[in-house]
Amino acid sequence: MPSFTVFKGSKDGSIVKSQTTRPDLKDDEVLVKVTASGICGTDEHYKQQDMVLGHEGVGVVEQIGAKVSMFKKGDRAGWGYVHDSCGHCEWCLTGRDNYCAERVMYGEGDLDQGSFGTHAVWKESFLFKVPENLTDAEAAPLMCGGATVWTALQMYDIKPTDRVGVMGVGGLGHLAIQFASKMGCDVVVFSGTESKKEEAMKLGATKFVALKGKTELDIGRKLNALLVTTSAQPDWPLILPVMGPDSTIFPLTVAQGEFIIPYMPLILKGLRIQGTVVAPRVIHRQMLQFAGLHNIKPINMEFPLTQEGITEAMGTLRDGKMRYRGVLIPQN
Amino acid sequence: MPSFTVFKGSKDGSIVKSQTTRPDLKDDEVLVKVTASGICGTDEHYKQQDMVLGHEGVGVVEQIGAKVSMFKKGDRAGWGYVHDSCGHCEWCLTGRDNYCAERVMYGEGDLDQGSFGTHAVWKESFLFKVPENLTDAEAAPLMCGGATVWTALQMYDIKPTDRVGVMGVGGLGHLAIQFASKMGCDVVVFSGTESKKEEAMKLGATKFVALKGKTELDIGRKLNALLVTTSAQPDWPLILPVMGPDSTIFPLTVAQGEFIIPYMPLILKGLRIQGTVVAPRVIHRQMLQFAGLHNIKPINMEFPLTQEGITEAMGTLRDGKMRYRGVLIPQN
Repeated sequence: MPSFTVFKGSKDGSIVKSQTTRPDLKDDEVLVKVTASGICGTDEHYKQQDMVLGHEGVGVVEQIGAKVSMFKKGDRAGWGYVHDSCGHCEWCLTGRDNYCAERVMYGEGDLDQGSFGTHAVWKESFLFKVPENLTDAEAAPLMCGGATVWTALQMYDIKPTDRVGVMGVGGLGHLAIQFASKMGCDVVVFSGTESKKEEAMKLGATKFVALKGKTELDIGRKLNALLVTTSAQPDWPLILPVMGPDSTIFPLTVAQGEFIIPYMPLILKGLRIQGTVVAPRVIHRQMLQFAGLHNIKPINMEFPLTQEGITEAMGTLRDGKMRYRGVLIPQN
Repeated sequence: MPSFTVFKGSKDGSIVKSQTTRPDLKDDEVLVKVTASGICGTDEHYKQQDMVLGHEGVGVVEQIGAKVSMFKKGDRAGWGYVHDSCGHCEWCLTGRDNYCAERVMYGEGDLDQGSFGTHAVWKESFLFKVPENLTDAEAAPLMCGGATVWTALQMYDIKPTDRVGVMGVGGLGHLAIQFASKMGCDVVVFSGTESKKEEAMKLGATKFVALKGKTELDIGRKLNALLVTTSAQPDWPLILPVMGPDSTIFPLTVAQGEFIIPYMPLILKGLRIQGTVVAPRVIHRQMLQFAGLHNIKPINMEFPLTQEGITEAMGTLRDGKMRYRGVLIPQN
């Protein structure tokens, strides 16, 4: 019976060290020893829950169930936000298993384990191969952050000839710029100030727009798509005039409350507001292949995968000081 | 020089009779004698403008320009909301001419003529053939109402195997039910009360849901798409649970203010809010072919195409008493 150390949320938001014991591996299960874990805004949302945190996991296979065929001991493997789905509904059968009604996502099940721990046990078909040229720490933030932006770019007909806007240069935004750029898109980055301009251009942006103080925008050719990765919702009257007709807005941030947008421009321009959450498995696999092929890597800040390290990393994220994604590394 | 009677809006919202004289027909222009005109909510919106009202026109070709090739004298012809586009931009070249930046729509140009009149002059390529088995009065409401709902059903990958919701049984809704039903869709109709149930079922609905007093809905299989044709926005907390994952909401009514929807369901279900306005020409043509083939006809109330008739028809529409689309007929 696998037994391992985990780090959980708690009522007062502090990180608690605990121990999980799982039954012996089932036929299709894999025990992974964690070597890197990303941290994400959703971890912050769940920090007051009695659950193990972390959902951007990368590690090494330590043990496999009797019928596991895609992984062997010693292989590198990663996992993300979704842990299970039914496998036979309309959505599972059409490559949209992230929308299966029986999907198990982070925060919904498997609350006794996560990537903030020494190990975890997963069904093999919800584990992903890690591309050779990415280190474990580089691969970890792709498991949710990368998957999220890639799904927006891949599932909804964005073409290499499109002009794609990325609003916000942070954990999601700095990955979106790279993916869209390597897809061949003309990438326009919107940020508050000029401070991230040089970095955004290096990541593949073709144009950078600092929004602060602007009351009108002129970016020339209009956008076919806009990925919104900022926690605050955009100033729509400022942004909508640069959206092209029949274009798509992707609100990618997890937020409470309501989504509010001026009604008539939505109709008259034939705009599309596309909700999307993480990735179906097939899209997740393609994302990792694409990142490997094009050497797409997050820019990480590393912290120790300890009680103190997690606390510090989450504080850094909360304070808006993460440049651009936090990764926790076990200390041996 | 064609000269004809027209009916305009005016400051106090009353209908004013006037005369329009147009230059001699250009090479690509057609003079149409109006035989039927639909009336639509947008006419009501513009009734205080100094412009000729009406944009659901059907008539008989009376004269053609030197190079007109698609129509000859005596042919039936209809027109809708869009009068012109540039013909060479990205949107015109990809069958989305309704989103051309230089499109001319009702209320934007050609303010000296409309379907509330004895005649009008249009570019031949913005005129449409009328299917043989539809009368002029039956074809008229298809030119905007029909085009609007058909575009939602055709441009965004709704499939015959989909379950499609239609909210509201009125000018748009009663056409949407017929089109979706003839496409093979399983059509669920949402209305305030049971009063329109029998008619909705006859038009092709497979299920009818009266919303009044409901705090929870159980419709079984969830919707792949929802066409909202009511002027009031839906009670989203009531409706969203019956939307399937990766499904599409079409807000089809023209309204001011903001579009507001709960944020998290949008993300977690991967919902899509699709703005759309009238139809590109290719979709408009297919709509008329399809209506002809399947004998899809509006249920009309007829009024005389006179100052008094227009005033009465617009009052009926405003009072919510139109069952289901108003058509004006010239009195000879």
